[in-house]
Amino acid sequence: RRAAMAAGEEEEDEEEERLRRRFMAPPVSGLRELRRRRRELRSRMELLIMETQAEVCRALAAVDPGAAFAVDTWERKEGGGGISCVLQDGDVFEKAGVNVSVVFGQLSEEAARQMRSRGKTLKASADGKLPFCAMGVSSVIHPKNPHVPTMHFNYRYFEIEEADGTKQWWFGGGTDLTPTYLNEEDAVHFHKTLKEACDKHDPKLYPKYKKWCDDYFFIKHRGERRGIGGIFFDDLDSPSKEEVFQFVQSCAKAIVPCYIPIVKKHCHDAFTPEEKQWQQLRRGRYVEFNLVYDRGTKFGLLTPGSRIESILMSLPLTARWEYMHTPPESSREAEILEVLRNPKDWVH
Amino acid sequence: RRAAMAAGEEEEDEEEERLRRRFMAPPVSGLRELRRRRRELRSRMELLIMETQAEVCRALAAVDPGAAFAVDTWERKEGGGGISCVLQDGDVFEKAGVNVSVVFGQLSEEAARQMRSRGKTLKASADGKLPFCAMGVSSVIHPKNPHVPTMHFNYRYFEIEEADGTKQWWFGGGTDLTPTYLNEEDAVHFHKTLKEACDKHDPKLYPKYKKWCDDYFFIKHRGERRGIGGIFFDDLDSPSKEEVFQFVQSCAKAIVPCYIPIVKKHCHDAFTPEEKQWQQLRRGRYVEFNLVYDRGTKFGLLTPGSRIESILMSLPLTARWEYMHTPPESSREAEILEVLRNPKDWVH
Repeated sequence: RRAAMAAGEEEEDEEEERLRRRFMAPPVSGLRELRRRRRELRSRMELLIMETQAEVCRALAAVDPGAAFAVDTWERKEGGGGISCVLQDGDVFEKAGVNVSVVFGQLSEEAARQMRSRGKTLKASADGKLPFCAMGVSSVIHPKNPHVPTMHFNYRYFEIEEADGTKQWWFGGGTDLTPTYLNEEDAVHFHKTLKEACDKHDPKLYPKYKKWCDDYFFIKHRGERRGIGGIFFDDLDSPSKEEVFQFVQSCAKAIVPCYIPIVKKHCHDAFTPEEKQWQQLRRGRYVEFNLVYDRGTKFGLLTPGSRIESILMSLPLTARWEYMHTPPESSREAEILEVLRNPKDWVH
Repeated sequence: RRAAMAAGEEEEDEEEERLRRRFMAPPVSGLRELRRRRRELRSRMELLIMETQAEVCRALAAVDPGAAFAVDTWERKEGGGGISCVLQDGDVFEKAGVNVSVVFGQLSEEAARQMRSRGKTLKASADGKLPFCAMGVSSVIHPKNPHVPTMHFNYRYFEIEEADGTKQWWFGGGTDLTPTYLNEEDAVHFHKTLKEACDKHDPKLYPKYKKWCDDYFFIKHRGERRGIGGIFFDDLDSPSKEEVFQFVQSCAKAIVPCYIPIVKKHCHDAFTPEEKQWQQLRRGRYVEFNLVYDRGTKFGLLTPGSRIESILMSLPLTARWEYMHTPPESSREAEILEVLRNPKDWVH
């Protein structure tokens, strides 16, 4: 029996060693702790976001071999921390960041107000305290070539403990594409890959989260969407923690097959200075969405002690705003604008 | 008597003709109407903002003779309109805009909520309606040369009619400077000119509005101010409408003498690509402030039918975000950062 235990421990050590080598940095909660509590959902989610970070970074590095990820680990004095992996000024990518964060502590007044405003009933204790834990992986990839689209994804898990000890929990996330020029084949590939990941769980999910994505990434003051969408969901807390986790896991596994083939296909496409300039104007719109509307960015900017450089890593390296810029009718610039104003169904 | 009346009319026609030639475009409320109601404060303020727009545009054109202002007049279907004067890609200025807007109608729910949140008690009628009128002149000047600072000003007047017929009114405004590199002589000149304009009315005004400016143009998530300040005030409704108007007029007259000498002094300064890049990074911060915190931008984006291109004209032509950029100690880049973190008194 002692021998069996030793063998078990050895296996565990091996598994731990495997993860240690695989991850970009040691997890915020510590590998040993995560392995010890491996049955708890918080631990499984932290392992999933670490795994996703590693998988995406490796896939990006493989298509841009000249560039290297800077890996920063940071701590949040109020509780938790994160790992930021950022590649800047590569051959293929202008700026690509993949962040993991695991933060906990007390919800700020402002953050609680924002959550209540979207329908959460958060019963704080007499001293107004609301212990929370938020973890997620998020990423924005801005390529250099205007024929390679920008991609964003984010998968996150939230827990809040109310005054009476009950725990509210939910998942949120999504993956979406922002091309400078429309390529229908790419759009179909991207959406089809996401649909397949969703369909494994419930055929109703993709149409619902596709629409949610089009509605969420809406730059209201422009009447335009940020990109050609993908999937988006938030406040997901049914049918069960386990089932939602499984779904999120499928979405996370779909990131690389969604995007990397599109990068490989176009990263050597020729482009003109005018095409590069149109990309810069679209990057300006990206900045507008992220700073004015994005819930994650706003939550980050409002959370005391959050790491600003990691939150604003989503902003492109460069962006441009021209007064009254309007592309000529029937141009390729007008073509993408039309789709941003009137989203299309890419798969049925 | 008939001859005297005719002479009076002739004089009025001449004055009207003089204004017509002077202004960048016909005023939103019509020149004849403004002249007829010339004793009302709304009319006097509209004439002042038209005058200010013309004066500033002419002064900018004089230092950048190769460039021309595009003048757009626009109407707002809910009521009112405006005149946007924008110079893009000149020899001296990368982007310079001077806007006038005069809008009226019903305050949107969201805008009313935002005003109440800063202490206004706005009693809406049973149907929730709050008739309002807002007018102002606003401008952002982004020069090409990193040794010429960006300048912003805005002077505005607000009226809201409550359910019981009482009118709330207030003025707001300010002028502030955003240099890429610190030049103490320029900072002193800028602040001194503003102080002189304020001191004519009350020696308490400058110190109060200088501090307000430092507090207002604060990029909280960065712990930095947007620039080296100037003056800023809002909700100004005492001692009397007339006195506040006179004060606002003095501030408006100070814009050209504040700024143009600094432009002339530095617009031919040599600069390096590194200095240009630092300017681009500072422009990124400018975008962050305007999209995340600026009250005027937020109000504009929330007001249905407002002219987005005029509101977002404040954004620079180009901006840049680098992950974890930190200038070396004792560099000229670190010098300006220090002042943005700890504002200084430039005049006593």
